[in-house]
Amino acid sequence: MSLLSLRLKANADRRLRAGHLWVYSNEVDVVATPLNAFAAGDQAVLEASNGKVLGIVALSPNNLICARLISRDPKHSLDKSLLVHRLNVALSLRDRLFDKPFYRLAYGDSDLLPGLVVDRFGDILVAQLASAAMERHKDDVLAALVQVLKPSGVLWKNDSSARDAEGLERYVKIAHGDVPEWVPLEENGVKFEAPVLQGQKTGWFYDHRMNRARLAPYVKGKRVLDLFSYIGGWGVQAAAFGATEVMCVDASGFALDGVERNAALNGLSEQVACIEGDVFEALKELKAAEERFDVVIADPPAFIKRKKDFKNGEAAYRRLNEQAMRLLNKDGILVSASCSMHLPEDDLQNLLLGSARHLDRNIQLLERGAQGPDHPVHPAIAETRYIKSLTVRLLPNS
Amino acid sequence: MSLLSLRLKANADRRLRAGHLWVYSNEVDVVATPLNAFAAGDQAVLEASNGKVLGIVALSPNNLICARLISRDPKHSLDKSLLVHRLNVALSLRDRLFDKPFYRLAYGDSDLLPGLVVDRFGDILVAQLASAAMERHKDDVLAALVQVLKPSGVLWKNDSSARDAEGLERYVKIAHGDVPEWVPLEENGVKFEAPVLQGQKTGWFYDHRMNRARLAPYVKGKRVLDLFSYIGGWGVQAAAFGATEVMCVDASGFALDGVERNAALNGLSEQVACIEGDVFEALKELKAAEERFDVVIADPPAFIKRKKDFKNGEAAYRRLNEQAMRLLNKDGILVSASCSMHLPEDDLQNLLLGSARHLDRNIQLLERGAQGPDHPVHPAIAETRYIKSLTVRLLPNS
Repeated sequence: MSLLSLRLKANADRRLRAGHLWVYSNEVDVVATPLNAFAAGDQAVLEASNGKVLGIVALSPNNLICARLISRDPKHSLDKSLLVHRLNVALSLRDRLFDKPFYRLAYGDSDLLPGLVVDRFGDILVAQLASAAMERHKDDVLAALVQVLKPSGVLWKNDSSARDAEGLERYVKIAHGDVPEWVPLEENGVKFEAPVLQGQKTGWFYDHRMNRARLAPYVKGKRVLDLFSYIGGWGVQAAAFGATEVMCVDASGFALDGVERNAALNGLSEQVACIEGDVFEALKELKAAEERFDVVIADPPAFIKRKKDFKNGEAAYRRLNEQAMRLLNKDGILVSASCSMHLPEDDLQNLLLGSARHLDRNIQLLERGAQGPDHPVHPAIAETRYIKSLTVRLLPNS
Repeated sequence: MSLLSLRLKANADRRLRAGHLWVYSNEVDVVATPLNAFAAGDQAVLEASNGKVLGIVALSPNNLICARLISRDPKHSLDKSLLVHRLNVALSLRDRLFDKPFYRLAYGDSDLLPGLVVDRFGDILVAQLASAAMERHKDDVLAALVQVLKPSGVLWKNDSSARDAEGLERYVKIAHGDVPEWVPLEENGVKFEAPVLQGQKTGWFYDHRMNRARLAPYVKGKRVLDLFSYIGGWGVQAAAFGATEVMCVDASGFALDGVERNAALNGLSEQVACIEGDVFEALKELKAAEERFDVVIADPPAFIKRKKDFKNGEAAYRRLNEQAMRLLNKDGILVSASCSMHLPEDDLQNLLLGSARHLDRNIQLLERGAQGPDHPVHPAIAETRYIKSLTVRLLPNS
């Protein structure tokens, strides 16, 4: 296979040499190598401005991120063989980390598989293709997954907004074998079923696994409120860890059916109740009814999806957390999570401090949780780090 | 008791209202309330520039941090009753977190006990007094500890450099009952004995408890190197978690006697070996001898003790981590810790990335560990957050 070259402007190779994998369109020497010579999903030999070969990239010529480094070795382009190799490297880490086959198997750039995310639910794989190159190589991706993992079912859950920037249509489709509506998994010793076809993202959020595990010492014998509960990842685990009563709040009746299903799976239906409705409205009503909780978990969807949403999004996080604090019993615990890549952890911490001071209370920051190791961070790519979970104890002013 | 007032300059109350507890000497209105009217350890009523009362402070008039807020309620000054109350609040958190009595019971400002640190080893307490006020109230501190915990022994381990700035002499002295040379404790199910009289700090570093717990999936069946091992906190736990061979390196023969003692306590003497000597020299010799390890743990003493040491200290962290990476087997894991408050976590991450790129390797950042919840962070006081532990996987360049 003979590939065209993509030439960078002077010094535009520095970030890549320092470990990054992305090329921005304004970094390309478009006089020497016009971007419109490429179709979406093409591969090319990436060159520094002096012609030195940096590796192989896959192109998305119409996207701001116009190319992603596939390999620093120009002999290795994106094909089934490279995919099999990278998936095996990814699998060997997960094999080391987990004794059961429930985890994120491949996490895009961080596993040197730009544009590919795969969540594993035992024999069922749910994959997301988020780049034109991965979409074009979907047969190779599938063949590689089948070779490495021999799954009974593979689902393309290709409905993320990331596909829009790549000019890819959104679809959900069974790629291989059978994929049931609800797929079993286990997390921290608790059983769940995830709606991989109809649910959010891949159907389950493995990223908070370790933060949920850390609930155990805080919830035992306590009354817990789980805001934006989805299908009960936090709430049902809180009940399994010994909470006497858990209230899950979500706007989606479908999600709350999932909470009930998952509570029942673990024999915890008695301990878990649901409130369907807008979370901010529910917070007001719980306050008016003078309900109090020992632990409140606030793990909302990303309030800051794009940088320009920062101000409004930050205000929403502040409102949510302050209202959550108002529902806490004496010596209460707030678990405040954010999956907004654009909200730095320090901002979340400051906002919790500000809310507490506003209520004339003190807080202690007890836990500073991150995404689990099956979502490795690529240390050169800030975007690969997104999960924050801060556990604070609210103390009386004194 | 009638207290003098300490008056702040205009706007100097803002940081305190936002949650902070410290007053810097340049924030005091010394015309209205001269600092030399106070003796070290005196208490005063803190006032904003408009005379509004902010609470009670304890003074260290000759220190840059000349006062610390004891209470926002002017009725509550530092005395035995306040100490008993605060210790009970601190204890109730630890009771919730841990099923065995081995932890940091009181962590200074974060537990609203400025100048007091207490580590608990079952019935033995090791306390550090780091402010003139706590030193002056040492009889109250002891009486409060005896009332709340009924210990069989209490040790004043008052030999930290923080005492110099407070004009306090350093000493180590048994304050109550009996304190043996080696005191038993348990961490993550592994038994240890800590040399509370002769060891570093309080004799044990509870702060890395959770990060050590996370060693388990990485070390099973592996060969491990523990640099700056002290008495084996990391190394002996690695062996207990199934490492086939652990090599502990430390410059102190006394510390390595502790490693052997602690390995023997757990029946792990066969798996744990020691090298006495300078860690950087040992790294060179291991490299020359072509020794390789699956996991290297680098938890050095603070290389950056003061801000002005940053450049040299950062270079030392870089040298240590790069040399550690060179000893890793294929698919090796580096656990890189720092207790330097002045080294931000992002700097440590960048330095690891730089080292890996220098060796033409890629890394994945798997774990981002912090100090455990018995070392709560005061969210307004950056100095209360100091522990970082980054676990990275070293991958071949590709």
